[in-house]
Amino acid sequence: MTPLRINGATRLYAIIGDPIAQVKSPELFSGRFADAGVNAVMFPVHVLPDRFDTTVPVLMRLGNLDGLIFTVPYKGQATQFADRLGATAARIGALNALRRERDGTWSGDMFDGAGFVRGAEHKGEVLRGRNVVLFGAGGAGSAIACELADAGIESLSIIDLRRERASALANTLRDVFPACRIEAVATVPRSFDMVVNASTVGMRDDDGLPGELDALTADTLVGDVIVLPKPTPLIRHAVRHGCRYVDGHDMIAGQADALMAFFGHG
Amino acid sequence: MTPLRINGATRLYAIIGDPIAQVKSPELFSGRFADAGVNAVMFPVHVLPDRFDTTVPVLMRLGNLDGLIFTVPYKGQATQFADRLGATAARIGALNALRRERDGTWSGDMFDGAGFVRGAEHKGEVLRGRNVVLFGAGGAGSAIACELADAGIESLSIIDLRRERASALANTLRDVFPACRIEAVATVPRSFDMVVNASTVGMRDDDGLPGELDALTADTLVGDVIVLPKPTPLIRHAVRHGCRYVDGHDMIAGQADALMAFFGHG
Repeated sequence: MTPLRINGATRLYAIIGDPIAQVKSPELFSGRFADAGVNAVMFPVHVLPDRFDTTVPVLMRLGNLDGLIFTVPYKGQATQFADRLGATAARIGALNALRRERDGTWSGDMFDGAGFVRGAEHKGEVLRGRNVVLFGAGGAGSAIACELADAGIESLSIIDLRRERASALANTLRDVFPACRIEAVATVPRSFDMVVNASTVGMRDDDGLPGELDALTADTLVGDVIVLPKPTPLIRHAVRHGCRYVDGHDMIAGQADALMAFFGHG
Repeated sequence: MTPLRINGATRLYAIIGDPIAQVKSPELFSGRFADAGVNAVMFPVHVLPDRFDTTVPVLMRLGNLDGLIFTVPYKGQATQFADRLGATAARIGALNALRRERDGTWSGDMFDGAGFVRGAEHKGEVLRGRNVVLFGAGGAGSAIACELADAGIESLSIIDLRRERASALANTLRDVFPACRIEAVATVPRSFDMVVNASTVGMRDDDGLPGELDALTADTLVGDVIVLPKPTPLIRHAVRHGCRYVDGHDMIAGQADALMAFFGHG
């Protein structure tokens, strides 16, 4: 790893969240910039919710700031600051990255789903034609659903405790991806060959599985967005059944690749 | 030197100026923080003049930003953001550093002069009792004049092409330091044993000396705030006459010590 450097000519990227101390992006991207020979760093910015709307426009006008990443709880609110949205951000109404264009305008898109797909592809997994069960229709789940449909999966069954959230997502995506069978369901369907957890179930070690997944066949590809504990209950379950998997770390690495490309340093 | 690290828990310091690419503080202070085992960095912030007043309050409210340094052209304007001013900043109406206190208020002070005095002391020079000729009554000159008087010099003769600026500074300091003979003068007085250049004369290599200083005696202490060229015409002149000197690099090192202490990491 190339040592970090900061000087007067260093270009700035920031990640904005509340809380912020737990984020991995400053270390990850500052290191990636250094490795790429780019004089830039990513620093963490702690912004409280009542100051978000007034803080972001000021950061965007700093003369040497070229990009922003947004994390919890700001991915939805951040769309107001983009002059244009990428396809995924526009579909799900949330973004996690903004970049300054040469003309001074700002483009935004959502890379949570792209990170998952890149992470899977990086491990050599084929997504096209899969029949997918997805747990969680929140921000990460919506982004992943969007990218999976775009990657050519055969069908998508969306499960969320808030059933109307799953239905809303299914309705949105059906219009955009007519070739993919997409539906909101209450229970795990009989037949599938891929399962993705984008819910918060599994963040606590005693959480268990996000749904009834007792009978995994070995050809089932298992994905989980949760980073810690490592491995998660679902990934442990996958390993026990001889399944291949894409975990939160694979997704982070995939997302870093996608974001470096978005920022023009890929 | 300890390698730099940036992560989610890194505390932030920023230097604000226009232009910004030439500043040395990000490298200097980020390195000092790392060497001190403090998880903090200083990053450069480029702010245009018409955005200064609206940008600084927003930066001051970032939850993880603990201090700011101000450089050209913002040292005067920055005083409006301090809840309280140190003695030097109050006297000369300018500051170059703000720090967040535990109660969330902000304290500011001016360290350009303290840096010069610390740099001199670090080289073992005695300032008390000196008869000083000072060229330049701008921001740096005012701060140095203030700190030299505070350090117990015997007399101070201030020379500035803008004579009224020299007079105003002399008047201000006479009230505060009655034991020191302070006056604005048009030409170099006959007798002195210290000369300090705080004007811009000497930034270009063909500038020559800031005033008529042909006959330097070897016991004259020579100071120059100019960093480049190194050595400056005045410092070369000092060396030729066997004089000891304090240059811009000594001053920067002295100021870094003073600022680290101000930020609570000294």
